Amino acid sequence: MYSEKVMDHFTNPRNVGMIEDPSGVGEEGNPSCGDIMKMYLKVENDIIVDAKFQTFGCGAAIASSSMATEMIKGKTLEEAWTLSNKAVAEALDGLPPNKMHCSVLAEETIHKAINDYLVKS
Amino acid sequence: MYSEKVMDHFTNPRNVGMIEDPSGVGEEGNPSCGDIMKMYLKVENDIIVDAKFQTFGCGAAIASSSMATEMIKGKTLEEAWTLSNKAVAEALDGLPPNKMHCSVLAEETIHKAINDYLVKS
Ligand code: FES
Repeated sequence: MYSEKVMDHFTNPRNVGMIEDPSGVGEEGNPSCGDIMKMYLKVENDIIVDAKFQTFGCGAAIASSSMATEMIKGKTLEEAWTLSNKAVAEALDGLPPNKMHCSVLAEETIHKAINDYLVKS
Repeated sequence: MYSEKVMDHFTNPRNVGMIEDPSGVGEEGNPSCGDIMKMYLKVENDIIVDAKFQTFGCGAAIASSSMATEMIKGKTLEEAWTLSNKAVAEALDGLPPNKMHCSVLAEETIHKAINDYLVKS
């Protein structure tokens, strides 16, 4: 049912936790399942130098946010903004159709964190 | 949003894993969120001497199955069968309404594992 990459990022998630004194923070809930996610960004010269997340969501949400944070680190804000949930799911070698909403949660939480940074800076 | 007990069982879940040569195994999926759970029981003289679970589900599913497995260990099959998801949620000092379906998943998976044992024995 789940790819090896999904199981890897689920059982050994990257970038779990919080950033002290973050440049931007985003929090988002998923009404369909009731799950929540929080994303912390550290930005320097328009580059995301660090990203961490916390979630109470399911394994697909954990794998998606683990992969998404890996993909946006070292990228510009513009590049991170255009990272779609489909690209994250592809990088994970796919997600079951009924779990795509979990990757949307990761994408939207990143957008909120970037907006939070842009509003503050 | 979540009680201290839920957070404790989410971040430090009890009885995660599988039992080699189990007396009964149950697997159940939750159509509303797409999550799955698997429950392993070791039964001796009608008593559940060990219980373990695996899930790809969210934090509420992890906390519910952690608490539920703790509650059925040392119990008879009849006692374990009557453990309701409400009793598990109460033992966790409550779950948000939109997360009660995660505790139902734990209850149903226990029922399936008990049935599996009864059919085999
Ligand atoms: S089911 Fe809620 S985030 Fe996956």
